[in-house]
Amino acid sequence: MKQEFQPNDRVALDVDGSGVALLRLTRADKRNALDWPMFEALIDAGRSLFDLPGLRCVVLAGEGKGFCAGLDLSVMEKLAGGESPQLAERTHGNANLVQQAALQWRKLPVPVIAAVHGVCFGGGLQIACGADLRIVAPDARLSVMEMKWGLIPDMGGFLFWRGTVRDDLLRELTYTNREFSGEQAVSYGFATLADPDPLGRAMAIAREIATRSPTAIREAKRLFNRYQEMPADELLLEESMAQQRLKGSKNQLEAVRSQIEGRRPSFTDP
Amino acid sequence: MKQEFQPNDRVALDVDGSGVALLRLTRADKRNALDWPMFEALIDAGRSLFDLPGLRCVVLAGEGKGFCAGLDLSVMEKLAGGESPQLAERTHGNANLVQQAALQWRKLPVPVIAAVHGVCFGGGLQIACGADLRIVAPDARLSVMEMKWGLIPDMGGFLFWRGTVRDDLLRELTYTNREFSGEQAVSYGFATLADPDPLGRAMAIAREIATRSPTAIREAKRLFNRYQEMPADELLLEESMAQQRLKGSKNQLEAVRSQIEGRRPSFTDP
Amino acid sequence: MKQEFQPNDRVALDVDGSGVALLRLTRADKRNALDWPMFEALIDAGRSLFDLPGLRCVVLAGEGKGFCAGLDLSVMEKLAGGESPQLAERTHGNANLVQQAALQWRKLPVPVIAAVHGVCFGGGLQIACGADLRIVAPDARLSVMEMKWGLIPDMGGFLFWRGTVRDDLLRELTYTNREFSGEQAVSYGFATLADPDPLGRAMAIAREIATRSPTAIREAKRLFNRYQEMPADELLLEESMAQQRLKGSKNQLEAVRSQIEGRRPSFTDP
Repeated sequence: MKQEFQPNDRVALDVDGSGVALLRLTRADKRNALDWPMFEALIDAGRSLFDLPGLRCVVLAGEGKGFCAGLDLSVMEKLAGGESPQLAERTHGNANLVQQAALQWRKLPVPVIAAVHGVCFGGGLQIACGADLRIVAPDARLSVMEMKWGLIPDMGGFLFWRGTVRDDLLRELTYTNREFSGEQAVSYGFATLADPDPLGRAMAIAREIATRSPTAIREAKRLFNRYQEMPADELLLEESMAQQRLKGSKNQLEAVRSQIEGRRPSFTDP
Repeated sequence: MKQEFQPNDRVALDVDGSGVALLRLTRADKRNALDWPMFEALIDAGRSLFDLPGLRCVVLAGEGKGFCAGLDLSVMEKLAGGESPQLAERTHGNANLVQQAALQWRKLPVPVIAAVHGVCFGGGLQIACGADLRIVAPDARLSVMEMKWGLIPDMGGFLFWRGTVRDDLLRELTYTNREFSGEQAVSYGFATLADPDPLGRAMAIAREIATRSPTAIREAKRLFNRYQEMPADELLLEESMAQQRLKGSKNQLEAVRSQIEGRRPSFTDP
Repeated sequence: MKQEFQPNDRVALDVDGSGVALLRLTRADKRNALDWPMFEALIDAGRSLFDLPGLRCVVLAGEGKGFCAGLDLSVMEKLAGGESPQLAERTHGNANLVQQAALQWRKLPVPVIAAVHGVCFGGGLQIACGADLRIVAPDARLSVMEMKWGLIPDMGGFLFWRGTVRDDLLRELTYTNREFSGEQAVSYGFATLADPDPLGRAMAIAREIATRSPTAIREAKRLFNRYQEMPADELLLEESMAQQRLKGSKNQLEAVRSQIEGRRPSFTDP
């Protein structure tokens, strides 16, 4: 049964005519800090996007002065008091609830782009890193913050970062919870591109992705989600099989014909 | 039975006295685009190099204005029309024909260096990335081009790039087929070094590699082809066993003695 | 039975009141080259640190003009003459003796920082790369030196570098044994940060790490030592289980309380 997104005071979801969804964290007075209602709202939004017809790309952003300040202090105090779900329980496939809030962006079949400005700390950084790409303001402030609270990153950070951040840098930043800028985030591997207008740039890339064959985009993302841990021979076979499914398909023919005819393509939803 | 290289109008192969082979794509009027005769010529050349006595290093380059423009439009049209080999068939070990055109450079026991100028798109980029190293002109033009045609990279790209290109950047470049320069290619991980004279620099590195112990070079390449996916304990054992084979061998003694005596070494073919 | 560190003329070990150990190579007249007594001294020092109560972080450095010039020529000559231990024997867990001299820094439960100035060649580079982080002088001189002697890196290099150095660059530097600077080492991935005073900077980071919850630091390092090769689902479960052990623990409560109260934390040894 299709999940409808329920309006709430933690996030806002808008989808435009080109299939680009914009999900904003709207708890600006608390710098979009993660309390339980925020976790629930994020997961509800993600679930509703899974079944949305015509969806081509998703952009994540924060309202107000920053993307997300990380765990809300109220959650921190409850965690310290032992009032928290059993983290080892896999309530969302291969994840628990907090991991799912970041992982669902990876699991979505379409690309997800995080637009990061202001603070992006701890759990906020991991949610951004669950996206396929990250566009950051050069003066954004980021931190693998968990060590400050006697904790480690546990919202998928180890999984996301092993493909983008050098092992030694990641150790340093995790051990010391040193803050770094958006500019540094690009050079460290936490962010894809720096842009003074991260949301504008993220929307522009999203709209561009929305003009590509949605079938080919999904096959690409499916492989990107698995290529890091496949044996070489299996990976070679998987890329061949994905291409075999694509070539000669309706959307692939349309891509070739529209290129040759110099016109905008008109693709069918997968 | 040793395979002789058959002269043809798609590629030219020259081997100098130091064991350095130069393979040039010679379809300059079509920017070295990949049609079936080009695929066959590349694979024939690779096969002939496998058994070439005294081979120490290979350089790949394109004649004319660029390295390789990617798939020929004639192939694209046939692909779209369904006239193509079954991609999932493993006709070349762990690869199909188009993958083998890129993978064979990885499989060769000696290092391969691609010298890239001008355009290097799609399948051309994957062939270059099958090499051990890539020297690019700063103004070279590169693209993971496949999405333009409603396709994904399927000539080993996912395998080559997971060791050199950040996951997020690779997703962006694949989803959008954005073109990037040789200078950017170095910072993104697609190229090793930028040089205004990529062929000259590639030949210089190749000649330097040709002066090293061919036995040690081959052991190193053998490990580089496998180290990304070995469990840690196995990798530690493999490097020890490779070193055990090398130490005290004729070529290793010659390396030490020539260093101590300050003379050029004289190595034996493995 | 606890191993006492035996004073010797190859290394010096000092531990300060904050739990930061400084291990210096003290064979300055030979640029700290690795002979058998040096290997033994390094391994003795590492072993004694494993059981040291209150240890929070370790810094490795070289006395005199450089960090370590690599294998001593006397060892090289014996290796070439066949007088060497059987390298394939696993005398130290998953390692042989020379691998253990580098790997033990990875195996230690607390972070290790190498401070590198002057030369850092061959086996010396691999010892530095066994540390969690590397701070290098911008004008330090580094090289994957083994090919010069007809050998390959075999002190864990393939393992350490696959997480930090791009595959193509690593091939080039291994095949050619080209020397590179500390500045280049940072851009290539061999070093974490460049600093004109590497030892001062390493000690400062070590002292900062020493103020964090030692329980959380150890859980983080334990995961960093394994995250590169775990399947995604297992990694997600492991980070949850590590966090489950941390949250609500004595040291985690102390981290939260000291932050809220704005005072220095007082942690208990794990």
